[in-house]
Amino acid sequence: MYLRELDAATREGRTTISSSTVARAFSITDAQVRRDLACLGQTGRPGVGYQSAELASRIRKALSLDRTWRLAIVGAGKIGTALMGYPRFAGGGFRVVVAFDDNEKLRGTTVAGVAVKPLTDLAEVIHSEQVELAVLAVPAEVAQDVAVRLVEAGVRGILNFAPTPLKVDVPVEVIDLSRSLEQLAFHVSSV
Amino acid sequence: MYLRELDAATREGRTTISSSTVARAFSITDAQVRRDLACLGQTGRPGVGYQSAELASRIRKALSLDRTWRLAIVGAGKIGTALMGYPRFAGGGFRVVVAFDDNEKLRGTTVAGVAVKPLTDLAEVIHSEQVELAVLAVPAEVAQDVAVRLVEAGVRGILNFAPTPLKVDVPVEVIDLSRSLEQLAFHVSSV
Repeated sequence: MYLRELDAATREGRTTISSSTVARAFSITDAQVRRDLACLGQTGRPGVGYQSAELASRIRKALSLDRTWRLAIVGAGKIGTALMGYPRFAGGGFRVVVAFDDNEKLRGTTVAGVAVKPLTDLAEVIHSEQVELAVLAVPAEVAQDVAVRLVEAGVRGILNFAPTPLKVDVPVEVIDLSRSLEQLAFHVSSV
Repeated sequence: MYLRELDAATREGRTTISSSTVARAFSITDAQVRRDLACLGQTGRPGVGYQSAELASRIRKALSLDRTWRLAIVGAGKIGTALMGYPRFAGGGFRVVVAFDDNEKLRGTTVAGVAVKPLTDLAEVIHSEQVELAVLAVPAEVAQDVAVRLVEAGVRGILNFAPTPLKVDVPVEVIDLSRSLEQLAFHVSSV
């Protein structure tokens, strides 16, 4: 969240930013911002604030975002295809190097500059393309099987869009669109 | 999560499901499952388990999902367009009734059966279509303004895909694709 705010500041030409400006953006206290950023060894100058670009660079380093992560999109349905051309991945240290899908119509095609390969080539291509992270956007029924194959092929982490829990020995982040909507509906009903 | 598991059980013809089966799916304890479900006034029968369909229906009711929520997609870019045809929304008590986008090329078109209207008509259409929830998939720069207009028009909750925090007086759920990938990269680096 801090990174978003700092990047916005840099884009808008604000070279310095105060803890109170950051705090206001997220409805938290100045003290919380200063405490969090102190963990990165950063202290703002009184009356001046933080150097936006320098602080952003420190945060990127702490989050291992000061490099490019090679990403595969697995499942080239509507969501997978939308993610292939997602511009903010490219801007944020992630490069989609390949996509996988078994749909015959997609075989040998390129979507948003990304080659779509069949899942039979998964292990080989993951290796040759040095894929580190995978976005899993396949139907729930096959998600676990595909996830296991990804990890066996050397993928180190999975962003899971499939609406089913995965059992694998690498870190998994979950995006469950329906669950998010359900939570929203629940909160709206409880207001 | 319980709902996902129960729906899967029902689909597969398993009319009853034990707390230990549910627990295994999420790597939690049987006792936790029983405690959670007891909050809904449900107790499984020893040696038999829970009635899958009945329990799912109870959970839906508790989460206000035993009705159809009328949904607008705001921003018909790649992500917005992918969501218009997302089949699991329709299966889960959500109906996309309209989309908004100012792209001239989309004016008057229909995507996945959903009419795309210009943002100038937002207030009027939100009212006439009785839209309750909105999925916000517009660029960060305009997200806050559009969100305020949505709330003024009567939208009761927002699912925010725009990578910027919103200040509005209705519940907001956030899906930040880049942030999820960043968290994944961080976890992978920390393993």
